[in-house]
Amino acid sequence: MNAHAPRYRTLDMPGILALLSGLPDIAARLGGDGAQWTICEVSDGNLNNVFVVDGPHGGVCVKQSLPYVRVDPSWKMPLDRTFFEASYLRDIHPLVPGLTTRCLHFDPDLFVLVVESLSGHTVYRTALMAGAQWPRVVPDIATFVARATFGTSVLCAPFEHVFERQAVYARNTTLRRITLDLVLDDPYHDHPRNHWDDRRLDDVVGRIRASCTVRRVVDGLRLRFLTCPQALLHGDLHTGSIMATATDTRVIDGEFAIYGPIGFDCGMFVGNLVLRRFADPSPDAGRACVHDIHRFWNGFVAEFTRQWATAHPTPSDPSGPCAFFLPDAADASSRGERTPGPSQDPLQDLPPGRAAFLRAVFEDMVGYAATEIIRRIIGYAHTADFDVIPTHEARTVRRRAALVFAYGLLCHHGTHDGVNAAFGALAGQGEVE
Amino acid sequence: MNAHAPRYRTLDMPGILALLSGLPDIAARLGGDGAQWTICEVSDGNLNNVFVVDGPHGGVCVKQSLPYVRVDPSWKMPLDRTFFEASYLRDIHPLVPGLTTRCLHFDPDLFVLVVESLSGHTVYRTALMAGAQWPRVVPDIATFVARATFGTSVLCAPFEHVFERQAVYARNTTLRRITLDLVLDDPYHDHPRNHWDDRRLDDVVGRIRASCTVRRVVDGLRLRFLTCPQALLHGDLHTGSIMATATDTRVIDGEFAIYGPIGFDCGMFVGNLVLRRFADPSPDAGRACVHDIHRFWNGFVAEFTRQWATAHPTPSDPSGPCAFFLPDAADASSRGERTPGPSQDPLQDLPPGRAAFLRAVFEDMVGYAATEIIRRIIGYAHTADFDVIPTHEARTVRRRAALVFAYGLLCHHGTHDGVNAAFGALAGQGEVE
Repeated sequence: MNAHAPRYRTLDMPGILALLSGLPDIAARLGGDGAQWTICEVSDGNLNNVFVVDGPHGGVCVKQSLPYVRVDPSWKMPLDRTFFEASYLRDIHPLVPGLTTRCLHFDPDLFVLVVESLSGHTVYRTALMAGAQWPRVVPDIATFVARATFGTSVLCAPFEHVFERQAVYARNTTLRRITLDLVLDDPYHDHPRNHWDDRRLDDVVGRIRASCTVRRVVDGLRLRFLTCPQALLHGDLHTGSIMATATDTRVIDGEFAIYGPIGFDCGMFVGNLVLRRFADPSPDAGRACVHDIHRFWNGFVAEFTRQWATAHPTPSDPSGPCAFFLPDAADASSRGERTPGPSQDPLQDLPPGRAAFLRAVFEDMVGYAATEIIRRIIGYAHTADFDVIPTHEARTVRRRAALVFAYGLLCHHGTHDGVNAAFGALAGQGEVE
Repeated sequence: MNAHAPRYRTLDMPGILALLSGLPDIAARLGGDGAQWTICEVSDGNLNNVFVVDGPHGGVCVKQSLPYVRVDPSWKMPLDRTFFEASYLRDIHPLVPGLTTRCLHFDPDLFVLVVESLSGHTVYRTALMAGAQWPRVVPDIATFVARATFGTSVLCAPFEHVFERQAVYARNTTLRRITLDLVLDDPYHDHPRNHWDDRRLDDVVGRIRASCTVRRVVDGLRLRFLTCPQALLHGDLHTGSIMATATDTRVIDGEFAIYGPIGFDCGMFVGNLVLRRFADPSPDAGRACVHDIHRFWNGFVAEFTRQWATAHPTPSDPSGPCAFFLPDAADASSRGERTPGPSQDPLQDLPPGRAAFLRAVFEDMVGYAATEIIRRIIGYAHTADFDVIPTHEARTVRRRAALVFAYGLLCHHGTHDGVNAAFGALAGQGEVE
């Protein structure tokens, strides 16, 4: 099946149960014996088989790579993606223990990953489409991105450690190639993988593709995606990669993990919040969206700078981390630990070097959010957000408005002085164009 | 001697000859038999043993890593640096065949590297100190940097190929750590490795270290050095890493090879041109220095953009390189192949995306040039340039002027609109301060 994995075979449900029976820690977690376990296939993403197994004491979630894309078996793909997901969970779980699921087991021959199962959680995109208003999710994701990125960057650890980790994820070329092509390339020219179901989007697509500014900005984002390994990214942090309840938030599906610009994870998440807003054009949804983006960005900045302030760097220790952008004495005395209100610029009181670093993350966030919006409407992999809109006509109007908004973000990329400048228009009444 | 290299031993001259006798290709290149060969130790750099071996037909240069720093045996060091030099030569020789030396053999147990020997070449720093005026060197180095960096970047090759190469050099942590510490860290605070021999420099050193702007700029350069792997760099491209005659230029000593920002190689070279100018404060030297920096930067831009224009990217081929910053139709028609004159901005007629990319390289060049000047005067490894100045008094005056100049570059970093803005003052009469 795969030259590099001679023992690989795609497991059916009895095969999964047999595998788990042979893993004492997992069997103990499930409790009872195999005859008492139930298994249910819950494959939902585009790539892998996923099963939930429950026993008398508890449950686990089992994920296996297929040698092809699950939703398109003609698209062959190496098996190593669950390896990268397992590595990602092992690397970030200590940094964000309550915000993801723990890796319990990884089988390097079968490419089977076993993680804690979640109970009562819903895919956040689905919950949003059903009208859920869960106030924890946005700040939790802000904390997740801040801790997982800071903790895997050279801001926190000696570069020797970071580079070792980076070398692992540098081999995740299959999924990096997919993101590069599907998110940052295909939508900007004719490609058979692109699709949209209404010719009334053609003129906006044409304008986006004809714009020299858009092409230059997207080229820059593509280049940064490849040559700016600031931190370990989730790499696919849309609202479908989040499982939540009203009080608990977990990030899942880390197989796209790579080193890259921190603003990529921020932008994926924000882009999906914006897609949601265009699928529900009520004024309330608009205001809530802008409020959420403020809360996300301010929460991210607050947590990232908190991590930075407490990293206790020791520049004189050559094996220790580098003390990047230490506050000057003057900064330190004027700085507090407060989180700025939603209308304040969270960067204004930071030491200038740290503010400049985070301003670049903000620019990336805005740019990658725009590319995420565009590719989810005209690229290969759309999202379900717009499916709840009753008429084809209305879906087209709203998708069109989202495209126009993203087009504007790219046209003015680099000039947005904060969340309001980039996203404030989303709070406008009714349709946004 | 080294846990990872059980067969390693430091070879004496008979040992080198015995090793070469066992290598048929090398023996044939030398000609005759071993008894007719002469060997001469020419170790000159800080790190390794170097020998030149000559036979009736030709010569080779032999370099062996020591398990310590050659000039300071108490400073232990892994042996792998000749491995990285051999890899660098193999990677870049096809890109710059006449501008470096070919790797003829590498012994992974003894960490012995054999390269083509050069005949009649002088270390460029030494030649400059003796008053040589060789017009080929500066444009040759411009071409070298442009081709070696473009050809190893994602601008030229699919990222999958680039990342494989990058993973090799990511392991060159020993020498990256040395650059990070000795060039970009130690000089900016008290460290026992720093030294200078005249207390009359103390006040400038104090000003440099007390400046919040300098600290922020140097922090930014340090961070880019670690998180901006644009291309494969030589990593130590000072005038002592260049062997030249009036008509031939070769870059040697690639053991510091790493992926990093392209402006680092540019800045190392330019910083050493500036050091040379301060060691010879005649108006002629000043004008020549500014002229050389113009020729270097314009030559680099011309060659880099020529490579970019002829890379024939095929964006629709997913395994092909990415077409970054393709010229718009309007750009393409107005662009020529001319190299701008020394007073023209070489970026002015480029497609905007390419101009922006190269503007960032320019900023890096200026910043790293400044850090190179500073560390060569107050850091661990000084250069010989100032040694030809007859009096201690005059040496101090000129080193002080160089420090003040570099301090100015850092204070205004990011605001220099081209070579004249950054370096034009060097053409002033007599002493520069």
